[in-house]
Formats: sequence, C-alpha cells, structure tokens
Amino acid sequence: MEEKSQTAGKMKYSVVGHPLPRVDAVVKATGQAKFTEDLALPRMLYGKILRSPHHHARIVNIDTSRAQKLPGVEAVLTGKDTAGVRFGMSDGLPPDWYPLSIGKVHYQGDEVAAVAAVDEAAAEEALDLIKVEYEILPVVFDAQEAQKDGAPQVHAGTIPAPEIVWDVAGLGRKPAPYKVTNNICATFSREHGDIEKGFKESDYIQEDRFIIPATAHCAMEPHVALANFDSSGNLQMWLSHMGVETKRQWLAATMGMPLNKVRILKAYVGGAFGGKIFLHSYEFLAAFLSRLTGKPVRIALSREEVFLATSGDQRMTIDLKTGAKKDGTLVAQHMKIINDAGAYRGSSLIALRLAYSKSIPVYSIPHVKVEGVSVYTNKTPCGPKRGHGTAQVVFAIESQLDMIAEGLGVDAIKLRLKNVRKSGDIIPSGDRLASCGLRECIEKATREAGWGKAHSKKDNRGMGLGVSAAQSGVNVYPHGSSAIVRMNSDGSATLFTGAVETGQGSDTVMCQIAAEEMGLSLADIVLVSADSELCPADLGNFLMGGVFVTGEAVRLAAADAKKQLLEEASKAFEARYEDLETRNKAIYVKGSSESLASFSDVLSICQKEGGVLLGKGYRKAGPELGSGYTDAYVFTAAVAEVEVDRETGSVRLLKVIIAHDGGFSINPLTTEGQIDGQVIMGQGDILFEETLLKDGQVVNPSLMEYVIPIALDAPELKLVDVETVDPLGPFGAKQAGECARPPLFPAVANAVYNAVGIRLKDLPFTPDKILKALESQGENA
Amino acid sequence: MEEKSQTAGKMKYSVVGHPLPRVDAVVKATGQAKFTEDLALPRMLYGKILRSPHHHARIVNIDTSRAQKLPGVEAVLTGKDTAGVRFGMSDGLPPDWYPLSIGKVHYQGDEVAAVAAVDEAAAEEALDLIKVEYEILPVVFDAQEAQKDGAPQVHAGTIPAPEIVWDVAGLGRKPAPYKVTNNICATFSREHGDIEKGFKESDYIQEDRFIIPATAHCAMEPHVALANFDSSGNLQMWLSHMGVETKRQWLAATMGMPLNKVRILKAYVGGAFGGKIFLHSYEFLAAFLSRLTGKPVRIALSREEVFLATSGDQRMTIDLKTGAKKDGTLVAQHMKIINDAGAYRGSSLIALRLAYSKSIPVYSIPHVKVEGVSVYTNKTPCGPKRGHGTAQVVFAIESQLDMIAEGLGVDAIKLRLKNVRKSGDIIPSGDRLASCGLRECIEKATREAGWGKAHSKKDNRGMGLGVSAAQSGVNVYPHGSSAIVRMNSDGSATLFTGAVETGQGSDTVMCQIAAEEMGLSLADIVLVSADSELCPADLGNFLMGGVFVTGEAVRLAAADAKKQLLEEASKAFEARYEDLETRNKAIYVKGSSESLASFSDVLSICQKEGGVLLGKGYRKAGPELGSGYTDAYVFTAAVAEVEVDRETGSVRLLKVIIAHDGGFSINPLTTEGQIDGQVIMGQGDILFEETLLKDGQVVNPSLMEYVIPIALDAPELKLVDVETVDPLGPFGAKQAGECARPPLFPAVANAVYNAVGIRLKDLPFTPDKILKALESQGENA
Repeated sequence: MEEKSQTAGKMKYSVVGHPLPRVDAVVKATGQAKFTEDLALPRMLYGKILRSPHHHARIVNIDTSRAQKLPGVEAVLTGKDTAGVRFGMSDGLPPDWYPLSIGKVHYQGDEVAAVAAVDEAAAEEALDLIKVEYEILPVVFDAQEAQKDGAPQVHAGTIPAPEIVWDVAGLGRKPAPYKVTNNICATFSREHGDIEKGFKESDYIQEDRFIIPATAHCAMEPHVALANFDSSGNLQMWLSHMGVETKRQWLAATMGMPLNKVRILKAYVGGAFGGKIFLHSYEFLAAFLSRLTGKPVRIALSREEVFLATSGDQRMTIDLKTGAKKDGTLVAQHMKIINDAGAYRGSSLIALRLAYSKSIPVYSIPHVKVEGVSVYTNKTPCGPKRGHGTAQVVFAIESQLDMIAEGLGVDAIKLRLKNVRKSGDIIPSGDRLASCGLRECIEKATREAGWGKAHSKKDNRGMGLGVSAAQSGVNVYPHGSSAIVRMNSDGSATLFTGAVETGQGSDTVMCQIAAEEMGLSLADIVLVSADSELCPADLGNFLMGGVFVTGEAVRLAAADAKKQLLEEASKAFEARYEDLETRNKAIYVKGSSESLASFSDVLSICQKEGGVLLGKGYRKAGPELGSGYTDAYVFTAAVAEVEVDRETGSVRLLKVIIAHDGGFSINPLTTEGQIDGQVIMGQGDILFEETLLKDGQVVNPSLMEYVIPIALDAPELKLVDVETVDPLGPFGAKQAGECARPPLFPAVANAVYNAVGIRLKDLPFTPDKILKALESQGENA
Repeated sequence: MEEKSQTAGKMKYSVVGHPLPRVDAVVKATGQAKFTEDLALPRMLYGKILRSPHHHARIVNIDTSRAQKLPGVEAVLTGKDTAGVRFGMSDGLPPDWYPLSIGKVHYQGDEVAAVAAVDEAAAEEALDLIKVEYEILPVVFDAQEAQKDGAPQVHAGTIPAPEIVWDVAGLGRKPAPYKVTNNICATFSREHGDIEKGFKESDYIQEDRFIIPATAHCAMEPHVALANFDSSGNLQMWLSHMGVETKRQWLAATMGMPLNKVRILKAYVGGAFGGKIFLHSYEFLAAFLSRLTGKPVRIALSREEVFLATSGDQRMTIDLKTGAKKDGTLVAQHMKIINDAGAYRGSSLIALRLAYSKSIPVYSIPHVKVEGVSVYTNKTPCGPKRGHGTAQVVFAIESQLDMIAEGLGVDAIKLRLKNVRKSGDIIPSGDRLASCGLRECIEKATREAGWGKAHSKKDNRGMGLGVSAAQSGVNVYPHGSSAIVRMNSDGSATLFTGAVETGQGSDTVMCQIAAEEMGLSLADIVLVSADSELCPADLGNFLMGGVFVTGEAVRLAAADAKKQLLEEASKAFEARYEDLETRNKAIYVKGSSESLASFSDVLSICQKEGGVLLGKGYRKAGPELGSGYTDAYVFTAAVAEVEVDRETGSVRLLKVIIAHDGGFSINPLTTEGQIDGQVIMGQGDILFEETLLKDGQVVNPSLMEYVIPIALDAPELKLVDVETVDPLGPFGAKQAGECARPPLFPAVANAVYNAVGIRLKDLPFTPDKILKALESQGENA
C-alpha cells in the first residue's frame, strides 16, 4: 500500500522525488565555495593551543613570560584567564569541561594554554616557550577498573552547579551539583515488563559481551573557528559545525554576551558526522582571544588535534542477555552498557539514552531492561558519531540474534520477521510508529541478495544481515525549527532556514521542498541558510531532524506563502480559493491547463496593496518531553557479503545491499549519497578503524596510521527502494543520514561467521583478530 | 497645538525623539565600516572606461587590437558588444543612453570603450592603446540655440521603443518611440486657474529671468561598482548607491537576467545626495565585464570622471512672471523653464515635474502656469541633486517675491504670511497638506534672526529670507516599502529593511523606530539592511521617503510583531489584549510598574507552540497616481545674514537660521546633521560652485579647481524647532534631508540685496559677478 502511494506520489511531484543536482554543485566543483578552512580576514591572528602531554597531572605552575615577550605574540591565556567558564553537553548534569585546564589535566591532549600571534610560526614558537610544571598523578584507563574503590579519581569530589546555564532548551533548568563517586559520571536505566519474569519464561537464553572501541569521524575538513569582534562589540563567527543555534547559544552563554550580539555566519562545512556538535574549547578560545586582542582570530586544529581532542565515537562494553521461545519469539532482553567516557562526560549519557531509544523500535520484546553507566577515565573524551550510540548496541543485538537462531535451529531471517514491529505500534518509550517499512526492508534486502541460495559457505565467502532503527529528530530541545519563505516581485521565493549544509545535501533538499510546495522550480528558490542573524532559529537540523523537522518547517512556510498568494489571486480573479492551485510559477484553476495569472502578476497586486508576502513554518523536534523521543522512526536492513582470507586474516567486503525505509526520498541522488557514505564509513569502523590507545596515549593520530577505506576498498553497493510515505514528514520524508551505518556492523560480523565460522564480538575485525579466531577455531575443532 | 502635542510626544517616547548616537558610529569612527571603495575580491579585475575627447563626433572606427594584446588585459569592449542595451530615467519616454556609445558620441566624457585588466596600470595602458577614429560634428552648447531650426541635432531622428523595459514601477508600460524635434527631449506643462485672467486681475506684475548653472554633488566617496558572478551564474554587486531595488531591477533588465539572480549587497556609502540614483554605465559595465571574464570586476571612477560623467544638478533658465494685488495678495504666477539636459535626457523631465510640484505647496496662488522644456545639448548630462528641481525655482520665486514686496512697498515677511498655505489645504496637484508648519517656520525664523531690528543696511551686512517645500516620498513607483521584524528568543528583534545608509543616518533612525514601537532599546535591534536578497523590496528610501515611507513600513512591521507578542501574552496570562502594553523588553498591564513577563518568556512560549514571530509592514510611496504626489509636505524657512566685501566682491555668509517643519524628529542629532549639511552644501552652490564649461568642456573637474566650502567657511548655524506631528508619518515624522538647501538660495540673494542693494539672478554669486553688479549699480546711481 505504502509503496503504491509512493509511486503515485512520485508521479505527481515535479521537484521533490527527482534526482536533481545539488544547488551547491557548481560552486563546490569550481572551488568557489568557501569552506571555513578557506576564510581569512584582514589583521587576522592565528591561535594555537598548548595541550597536556600527561594523562593525569596537577598543574603546579605555568610560566608564560617568555611566550608573552616573543615578537608577534599578542595574547597568551591560561586557565586563570577563563576560569569562570565551563561547558559540555550537560544533559541535566553540571558541565565538567573548562576551556583551559584549571588545577589539573585529565587526559593527554587536555587544553592548558592558548596563544594568538600574527602568524602560525610565532604561535607555535610561543607554545614551546610556555613552561608548565606538572605533578604526575596516578592514571586509570579502564572503565571497569575506574569504578573500583581506590581507583584514581579523574574528577574528584563534586562538580558544582554552573554559574551560567546553556539554555537553548528553553527549560530554564539549572543543573544541580553532581557528586562523582567511583568515576561514575552518569547512569541510565529503563525497564519495560519484568525482565526476571521474561527470562524465566524463555526457552533459550544467550549471553555475550561485545566490545566497541573509539573511532574517529575523519571529516575531510578539520575543525576550524574564525572569530571576529567588530568595534561595536558584535561577535561574528565562522565555524565548521552542524547547528547554528546551539553553537550560538553556547558561545553567548560562555562569552557572557547577549544572544543577539553573537552571529554565526554561513561557511560550507567539509563533513561533520556528529563530530562538530559540541562547543569545543578552540571555538570558545577563538572568540575569547578575538575579544582580548581586538582582532580576528582563527584557530584551525591539526589532524592530530582532531584525533586527540574532538571526541570520537563512544567506547562501549555491552553485556547482552536475550531470552527466546523455542519458535524464535523473543521474550526478554537485558542490556548492560559500560560507556568509557574518557576525561569528560561528553555525550556519554546521551549515547546511553539513544542506545536504548533506538534499539527498542525494532523488535517487539515484552520484557526489556537497559542499564548504562558512564565512566570517567584518563582518555580522550567521546561524542556523537553518525548513528550516535546505535551502531554499538545494534552490533550486539543483531550478532546475538544470529547466535540465538543458530542455537534454536531456526532461520535467522524468519526469527527476525517473527519479532519485528509494524506501522501503528506504540513502542515502550511511548512513541508510535506512524510508518514502518521494517519487514519490507528485511524481505527486500535478503531477496535482492539472493539470500536462500547464497547462504552457504563456499570459498570462504559468507553473507550476513543486520537491522537497525533511527529517529527523525529528537525532542531534546522543546524549541523546534522555524523557516521563512518570502515571495519576491518576480515570482521567485527566498527561503530562510537555519539548516547547515555539511555536505549532506541540506541546501538542495530544503530548496526542493520549498519549490515543490510553492509550485516553483528549483532555480526559483533563493536560499539564505545557516546564518543566525538572517535565519530563524532552527534546532532540527542535527539530531537526525534535517529533513523531517527542518524540512517540514520549510514546507509549512512555503505552504503558508502559497496560501496567501492563492488568497490574493482568489480576490483578484473572483475565484473560489478552493478551486485554485499553483504550478509552474503561476496560478491555475484546478485541472485547467491555462494559467489565470503568473506569480509575479499576483505579487504585483499584493505589493501595491500590502507589501511583502511572507510565509512562516514551524515544526517541533518531536513529541512532548516524557511522551517519547521522536515522531518518526527510520529502518534499515543491511546484507553484507564478505570474503575472508584465511592466510592473511583480511576480510574483504564484497557487496552490501541496503534496504532503507527513510520515508519518501526528497532527492534520490542525495539519499544515495548518504547511504553510500554510511556504508563506506561503516566498512572502516568494522574492518580497519580504531583510535588506538597505548597506555592512554593515542598512537595513530594521523591518516597515515589511522586507516580509512579508500575508493579501491569500496564494495559493490546496492540500494533497495523501501520508501514509506510518512504521514508527518514533508511529502512523506523521514531521514537518510544515520540508519545505514549501524546494521552493517552485525551484517559483516554475521557474514564473517557465515563465511568461516568465527564469531567476533569486539571491533574492528582486523587481520590479527581474524587469524587469532581462526587459530582458536582450529584448536577447538 | 501641534507644538504642544509634540512636546507631550517627546515626553512619552524613550527611543525616538532622543539624540542617540548613530548605530554605525563606532565602526565608522574606527575605520571598520567597509565602504564600497574599500572592497576587494580575490582574482578581481580593474575596469576602466575610455571616454570621448570630443563633444559631438561620429565614431568612424575603433581599433582595439593592440589593447587586447596587452599582457594583463582580459577584456576590451566597445559599443557593438553592448548594443542591445539602453537605459536612462525614462519617465515614460524611451531610454536614450547606451552603456558604450554606438555610432557617435554626444558629449566630452561619453563612454566609448571599456577594458578589464589585472591591475589599474594595465587597464589604463590599454585605454591608451585603443585607437578611435572620429569625424567631428557641429556642436550646440546653448539650450536656446539648440531649439532653433538648423541647430546641430544631438539625438537626430527617433529614439526607438526599448527592447527591454525597466519595470520597477510595475506598470508594465512600454514607452513609445520618441521623435526628437529641435533637440527637445521632453516637455512639461500644468495650468491651474486661468493665467491670463490672473495677470489681468493683478495690480502689479514682476518679470525676471533667473539662471542656475550645473553644480556637482561632491560626495566624499566617488562612484564605485564591484561586480562578481559566481560560477552558478548569480551576480553579486556592491555599489555606492541610494536604492537597492531600483539598481537591482535596472541591472537585471540590462543584463537580461532573472531578478532573483541579481543581488545588491550592503556596503557603506560615502554620500550620495541624488548623484547615485541612476544606473550608470560603469555599473552595468562592471557586471558585463565580470560575466564576460568570469572574474570579479571593480570600476571606480576618478574624481574627474565623477565631474564629467555622473550627472550634476539641473541647469535651468527660468522666466518667472508673478502678479499681485496692491496689498500683496498673490494672484498669478507663470513660470517658463528651459532645462539644459545635456547629452542625455537624464532626470530632466522629472526635474520639471518636481519644480512644479514642490513650488505649488508654499503659496496659495489662484492662477498658476508652469511650462518646461528639456533640451539636448552637447554637454554633461544632469541628474537629481538634494532638493531635485526645487532649489532652482525657489531661488527664482523667493527672489522675485522680495522684488514684488519692494515694488508694492509692503513688508516681505508680511507678504509671504498673507499668502502661505496652512494645514488641511488641498493644493492644485491634488495633495492635501496633512500637516503644515509653514507660517510658524517664517515667524520663528525671522523672530530668531531679530528680523525687525537687523533688517537695515549697515557695514555692508544684510539679511534675507527664503521659503521652500519638499515632499516625503513620491508616488513615482506604485510599489512602496516593505519591512520585516523578526522576534528572537532572547527578546531582541531583527529588522530587515532595504533602506540604504548613505551617511544620512538611515540605519540609526530605522532601528530607533522599530525599538520604540516594540518597547525595546536601540541595542535590542539587530539590523539587516540594504541587501536585496535578505531584505524585502523598498522603494521609499530615496525620493525623500526614507523616514516617511520606509520608516513607516518599519514601524508597521514592529507594530505587527508587537501585536502578535501581546496576543500570545494575552492568551498565556489570560489578560485582555487591550489592557496590555510593552515596555523595557517586557509585557505590562497598562500603567502597572511590575511586568507580567519578559519578551523572552513570551517568545519561549511562542517558539514552543508556533515558531518564529514575524511582523511585516508596508507603506505606499504616496497617494494613487493621478491624485497627487505625496502624502506629506515638509516646509523650511531660511534666514541668511551676509556681509559683502565691496573691495573684493566676496560674500561672507555670517549666520543662517533654519526653521524646519520636517515633522517629528526621530533623532534630533541626525536631523541636525541633515540640516547642517544642506546649509553648507547650499552655501557652496550659492557662493562658489559651478561645473564650469568652456566651449562645452568642463574646466574644473577636480576639488582643486571646483571650490566647495570648508569648515572655516561655515556660518553660525541655528536650527529652530518647528516640528509638526504629521498624522501619517511614523510618530509624526516627515523628512529632513532636502528642504533646507533650496530656501538658502534666495535667502542669500535677498540678503545680498539687503546688504548692498544689488539683485543677482544668476548663480553662483562669485566675486566677479558681485563686483560687476556693484559697478553697474554705481553707473545706474
């Protein structure tokens, strides 16, 4: 049914649903597009940050006198200069992060001092001239050791309530002080049903421990901030980031400035993938140094700094216990997560919340319990990465489901199909699955893969399946997205949206939505995006709400403008409003092929009588807090086909089939780009990538040592169309940016098992691990 | 009555009516404000224009081959490259101006070729290498000679209808072809009453000829255009200009581009005074060369080019005949104007229309006839200058009134007071004087000057009076001004207005109006102005409508936003809407000193429920076409006190008193700045300035030779408060930018007569003219 309406839908649309080239294609292809990295301002200073060489140490003394005397150096800062400022994704808890360390350093890479100088060489030399005296403290690198009595305390005592509150949420809620006990920085727990009862009722119980290490985002563009104070005290900032409004609110709060004096301006962003959400020290420091020196200050992190200090993916150890009936009906699932947060809380609590909320929409399991603990260690902090918290738990759940199917002797696909949720289901968090193409995803992906016939070991090749869900916008912030459409006298429309183009195609998709709703072509839309001064507040752009939340705000704004236009036309031509429609930049009587008037004709009348014609749209980022997380879930099934080299231990990813229910695809080209990107990113996460720590030290902080997939590694890739038409999304769209990476993790794990019979539960599947597993398989045999 | 309500008004306002420092004060004082002249872009080319050395010549051949071969030269254009394009202030007639001359040149300075090169030196060298073969044609420099049969024809034959229509007016009207006869490029005629009958009924008739030469604007910043095409084919332009929408529409039309692909961006403008309204060749050529080369192109005119080719003030010869009764009652006035347009029509027809429409609101004369003819000559073209067309006729009318008073033996002040119009009058053009402080202006100015006692010759000192009117926006364009106010979550408001800050204080005044209406402070307004992409269309900014038209659109937008905010508050606090008001960024029950809620509290509710809060405002630029010109007239009386040096012939302007009815003064500081500026500009026009032509050639095209007043020349200056509260203006404001210059002309002329008894009827009053007049006075005596 959904598929049918979708096809019908595609036929009737002239702009959305079509694989149109990106609106930023030409400027990007010709190099005219300015990325944050490309920007420079007259009199600009270069900022650099001195980082701790120690994992845990008391700062005994900092002597900046020599650095300050160096010609060309205009400012040297230490923790005492920025002492009043703390930040971090508080999530209801007090922030634990200072822009520059105060009293002690918590990990190797922690910010200790900052300089601004007339060029990079002077700034670097100044860093060398800063003399810091440390007293080394005992370290803890293991999240389980850290919880034991007597372990070194990363953040000892109580984290006080903040002096300033980052109130983008509009909750007006000030976090209470938080007492750190045994390095536990946050906990999370949810139970639905009765987990003990569930296991009692189970015929079969499987228990496993899965381990997922930190990986990096490896965005093409490193993290850059350019701050400029004008002489009237207004701060302009260009950031490589993901959300205008959050950065702006954080900056205003930490800088102690009125919100309307802080402006985030548009620059193209060379990839983000979750790694640029946080307010990072370097961004605050650029602003702070600019105010101090009265000059623009640019801080661009080196690739090494990006690895060290910008929060990679969450390091989780997951103990998963699942109970099932003989026929494969899932009865109970208990997941215990230890999240190794590193030196600061980061988004570790949010990751636990998302691990829970994005795992429950997939299978209907009556008794579920999720417990998470987030633990401080003296390691690099963690943050969101594409499918925040999901890839980890999906790896565990979907790997284990294959083991259960094998244990029960039932088909793994049938087991999943027996338990999957469907449209209309209310899930334990309170959310309703308004659209759900999950079953179809599994059926279509496996059919496309030739599952039945290929599902037999030969030539060390194997096939595996994974299934995952994601959200389309999350109600973390009660303020959603607003958009404005202003009609111009020539019939074109100017769209104002806060959405940030990070490479995902946001600018294009927003223009398509506005154009379709208005009855315009893509060329008729003038886009003004990602500028906090020019665009209305938008909080849907990240947290997976780009299309579903922001896109719907854009559609509503366009619809509002269209309504006003039709009303004007209805008056001018004495036609019934209900009988009119817009097409091709003109007003038509419905069904008629001859237009009544062009947009510009009607606008000329409007302009003479009432001036500018403005439409506005607003979409909340999700349901009311407490009644769930999101208004739309996205589902993906991934089938991976691999070949394992028994000699070298290397795993080759041959083919990936993604069946993706992201709702209606506004632009099949950008959707495919999103899916392709996730598969390649996932391939790296599973097979090669790990931010390797040796005694707490990152030993591969460069793209020479940290291996990511290149074009030659890319598998054959097939995207299977499983679009639903979501009742709440713009034209039925949900999202396409996050759901395809997580299911690839178990798909590859299950394929490796299928190929050579080894079950790997810790990522990545590097040759040494494969060889070791094949070896112990030989021993066991 | 008006004065009383004005005082009461000032008391109740917290932002308007106060002499607040300019919002751009700091950036301008520190040099951070970027003027068009300051801008540069990477890869930018420098454009230069080759101009005709001849007054009238046929172009036999242009050889650009050597210029094209010069290293660094990227483009060389001649008329054949831009042949399809014509422009000019058509005013219902077909445009007569080509960006580069085709077939022949019409004046010394006419554009012949253009080059773009990597630096200015290469561009200048390239101009030298262009070889143009001319065939000299007979010339005509005198507008009366030009009308005679057999005179050389500047534009021979018929000017065809344009291929493209500049339709900013939204009239959709295409000018018909225009046949030029005897160099007449336009005519204008109006009669009210019966002029012959009027003179028959007169007891006394005075006839005089007045001659006014061309003067320049001498804006601090010369004319600059920077054009940039991005690779997607969008044109960005930075201009030193006066109105975003007009320039944009002209550029789109001449470049053959959709309006939404042309963007005019904000740059600060270093003075305009009417001299930057036109689309000039250099602006079109910058855009054209940028498209051709694919690089940014900057064309900055030299000061010499500004004098030669950017249209100074109108050259008028005015034959004025006025009839009066014995008691001084004015009965009939017949004005014949020969307007020497120069090589192109320019704004010569508009000047005639304005000369008529701005002279009739002052005195109630039953029989009036105005006849104007605009004539082509081989001289520099003319354009608007501060008080377009008014200074010339006011000089004539007010000089003659003093002569009539003397002839009748009645007091010149009493004569004027007997005939002046008053509030509520309907004038012959159809306009109603909704507010009129004219009588008060005369009374107060003369009282302040100590008219009675000082009005006697001694020490070659004398005193004179002049009176003038101006309009507050003119309905040339049926599309008026739109403005948008967007409320932000912190309670601040962002104002979007197309108004251009040319130095007059527009940015400040617009922010004050929005702040006052909202109940905010000036610091709470974020201004986005003068950008065609970001701001709604605005056509009120020039034509004297900055405050009255645009300002009212801004006020209405703010009022609309406030209304929505109060409605939200009324719902949230269950209070009657009528009982609420805004003050200090908060909502109050009327009269209460404790606020119900801050703006941000209410906005937080709005944002959760409906997103962005947007207000919009619209103001027409005047009454319906055909029913008059404007909705508000401004009046000024100027009293000048001079000292004439009988030895040297120099006239020293000792003191000027301006009594100005510009309606409520939004910002007394900027108002005073406007008045001061006009007095000094007028002083130059009257005493020193003239774009001197010798055989058609401008002989003083530099600020070394063209003398303008300096600080040491400035008279003592007194502004007398005669504010009315106009019922239609924002807070009762009208305008303050144009009305004080014109009456100074006759005030000085009358003062010179009063001082030494010589009556000068041709401007400027240079020492040689004074000496000559004194001499002939001696002869006559």
